[in-house]
Amino acid sequence: MIGRDLLGIEDLEREDIERILETAMHMREVGERDVKKVPTLRGRTVVNLFFEASTRTRASFEIAGKRLSADVVNFSPAGSSLKKDESILDTARTLDAMDPDVVVVRHGVAGVPKRIADVLAAPVINAGDGAHEHPTQALLDLLTVQQEKGRIDGLTVTIVGDIVHSRVARSNIYGFRKMGAEVRIAAPPPMIPANIEVLGVKAYTSLRESLNGADVVMALRIQNERLAGSWFPGVREYSATFGLDRAKLRHARDGAIVMHPGPVNRGVELSHDLTDHRPSVILDQVRNGVAIRMAVLYLFAGRRGGDGPMPLPDVR
Amino acid sequence: MIGRDLLGIEDLEREDIERILETAMHMREVGERDVKKVPTLRGRTVVNLFFEASTRTRASFEIAGKRLSADVVNFSPAGSSLKKDESILDTARTLDAMDPDVVVVRHGVAGVPKRIADVLAAPVINAGDGAHEHPTQALLDLLTVQQEKGRIDGLTVTIVGDIVHSRVARSNIYGFRKMGAEVRIAAPPPMIPANIEVLGVKAYTSLRESLNGADVVMALRIQNERLAGSWFPGVREYSATFGLDRAKLRHARDGAIVMHPGPVNRGVELSHDLTDHRPSVILDQVRNGVAIRMAVLYLFAGRRGGDGPMPLPDVR
Amino acid sequence: MIGRDLLGIEDLEREDIERILETAMHMREVGERDVKKVPTLRGRTVVNLFFEASTRTRASFEIAGKRLSADVVNFSPAGSSLKKDESILDTARTLDAMDPDVVVVRHGVAGVPKRIADVLAAPVINAGDGAHEHPTQALLDLLTVQQEKGRIDGLTVTIVGDIVHSRVARSNIYGFRKMGAEVRIAAPPPMIPANIEVLGVKAYTSLRESLNGADVVMALRIQNERLAGSWFPGVREYSATFGLDRAKLRHARDGAIVMHPGPVNRGVELSHDLTDHRPSVILDQVRNGVAIRMAVLYLFAGRRGGDGPMPLPDVR
Repeated sequence: MIGRDLLGIEDLEREDIERILETAMHMREVGERDVKKVPTLRGRTVVNLFFEASTRTRASFEIAGKRLSADVVNFSPAGSSLKKDESILDTARTLDAMDPDVVVVRHGVAGVPKRIADVLAAPVINAGDGAHEHPTQALLDLLTVQQEKGRIDGLTVTIVGDIVHSRVARSNIYGFRKMGAEVRIAAPPPMIPANIEVLGVKAYTSLRESLNGADVVMALRIQNERLAGSWFPGVREYSATFGLDRAKLRHARDGAIVMHPGPVNRGVELSHDLTDHRPSVILDQVRNGVAIRMAVLYLFAGRRGGDGPMPLPDVR
Repeated sequence: MIGRDLLGIEDLEREDIERILETAMHMREVGERDVKKVPTLRGRTVVNLFFEASTRTRASFEIAGKRLSADVVNFSPAGSSLKKDESILDTARTLDAMDPDVVVVRHGVAGVPKRIADVLAAPVINAGDGAHEHPTQALLDLLTVQQEKGRIDGLTVTIVGDIVHSRVARSNIYGFRKMGAEVRIAAPPPMIPANIEVLGVKAYTSLRESLNGADVVMALRIQNERLAGSWFPGVREYSATFGLDRAKLRHARDGAIVMHPGPVNRGVELSHDLTDHRPSVILDQVRNGVAIRMAVLYLFAGRRGGDGPMPLPDVR
Repeated sequence: MIGRDLLGIEDLEREDIERILETAMHMREVGERDVKKVPTLRGRTVVNLFFEASTRTRASFEIAGKRLSADVVNFSPAGSSLKKDESILDTARTLDAMDPDVVVVRHGVAGVPKRIADVLAAPVINAGDGAHEHPTQALLDLLTVQQEKGRIDGLTVTIVGDIVHSRVARSNIYGFRKMGAEVRIAAPPPMIPANIEVLGVKAYTSLRESLNGADVVMALRIQNERLAGSWFPGVREYSATFGLDRAKLRHARDGAIVMHPGPVNRGVELSHDLTDHRPSVILDQVRNGVAIRMAVLYLFAGRRGGDGPMPLPDVR
């Protein structure tokens, strides 16, 4: 059912997402043991091919791979030549010839993981490509909401921030829509993509209105360098109008949770207080990130030469 | 008995130190086998969180962790934002949410490992913080002296060099004092901290006098950029007065050993000849470093969720 | 029979090469399994000591080590001090004191691996030193030819490119000559070393003549910065006269294969078409690289404290 690669949430069916979330819940149990390790991917090789620096996401995939007993090889090509499409593909082909079981790719340019997947024998997991998608981030967000709220279907989710430049927003819009949630976005006009309605979301320029009835409020990280641009509001203005604190959060539904992909610009997207305490669930998102990546590696890395995912028995 | 974290030798009791040294002696036996690996920490995750570059210490912890069958994840955050206290703590909290069993921290600023330990669930091992402490270095030095001299109690140890800026000196002063040795320091006046006597050491500005009766002479690494400063002697003058060679060493007790934390500035702190040959024991210090780090990881990493260190049986 | 270190093909006997190739063929079988892992080097430590950046070769050794169940520690010293011979040797001695079972060394200066081997207890594998040798590259090339042609003895091999600056050329000249092949080199005059005939090769300045009767055509990577030099031809001229495409390849023997150590400057050393399709075997070379490095680690890393290589049983 699930394809060979995980390039974006856009390509997944609801059943695929449910299966990944269910597998991740088994993986979370592994994470709660004293010995957090299963032999499931023993002898399999996971390559982290990160063209864009990312210690957090890379560490999450590395820990996930090691908890499954896979061998994890980090590979961060450097140098200007790797901006050329052909050099990128040749690098990926070279690694592929070393017969990895899965290649996790991050790149600053949208579409590169797909281009790589087209030429590799190994399955490709997209760990973030430009402003396109970051599917494992959306999956860990879905898992966190499922865990906190017991369901996703029928909830109202408000995503706040620079939607135009956010792969996290894009993947989450696809994910929450497919799982039956209502998705709203809230941002200053320049941060709202044109025609975003075609994705089935409603756009708000008033944070207060967007929060009315929201069960989940997801703040996006703002790139400070973007806020310095002439047509974006300054940091102080952004923080005053779209930064979340307990006062503004009162407009959301009682019991609403607050999410953020991290790292938080404290005092900008979230107040200090909200960053550190419930109802924000930022560190649960990080913890679920390892479980989601274990599930994804398990479902996609065990298939080379086979005809489908392996059975789950030794995970339990 | 031993606390949750290993932040400095200052916090340890003599019994704690003895226990770590005893455990390290078991670990040394493992290092002498053909297959230098025990399953003690299988399924445990060691995170090396090094904000300050250090290939040697990082490699020592990495090898130590792998010999105990732990999964080791190296994490070297970069970027100016990581000079801010809050970014440092948020980075550490993020890693902590991935449920490591121990986090090894090195940072250029004194006190950062303690600040991190205050917010983490995982135990923290200080791998060097500013000019504060470098506890595993002192422990490996103690182990080396114990091995060479059969005891530490009652020995005379002279530490030579830039005491003001040396975390190695500070940790060793605490360690040798607690273990019953007499500790002397010898340096040009600007390199001697004010009130150093409160640590129970005697300060000398004459190398010759400081060596009289010494069983152990420990030279510290001099930062060349410091020697260029106006109130410090130049390299040549330092080397002439405080650099060790066989002639000067004759003032020490017969059979005195020479130690250095490495890397040696050859011809500055130690003559070429002393760097390479007995009575210097520099490479024994390095070898004992792996054993000490195995002992420390074993004693501190196996405790998350438990109420004390694990039994030692499968180490033997 | 085989020495303690693998510093260059020049030092090997034909029997040594045959034994490494035969071992690599067993390792290739491991690489074709679903679980590509054998316990042969469990508990052994492989240190990758790379003074010169090289993600591809480093990844190949790392994957090879992990497939043999070794612990692999990557160590890439940085900083200007490591250009000094003594700092290099002291760094290597420090690592050696951590008791690795083998140290893989790459350095930009010819002869450094030999200098390091002279002072280490651990065996040293040369992963490329300046313009001197790159023995595992030649071994993987030999394995690829053996696999493609069924033999090496009696074949004609033409190496095309900047022979003066190429450790790949040097190692391959030794390797193919020792295995009984005729070796030719083809390049513009400034790229042909003086007295190259003493290595038993024939030099050509006409590509067409050099290809006449060739079974194997090996193109070398051209450093673009070198082509910019005043006494070398420009990129376009080089490509026109020594760049390989299907038209020029017609001068070689029917069924000739094309090799390249990668990464290819597409359109310079090889046409796009030849880079991607048979008769070029570039990705087979990469795949064989892992098998060769497994064989070499197996033959050289298992010997510390013993008196010869271990038996092969659990590889089969």
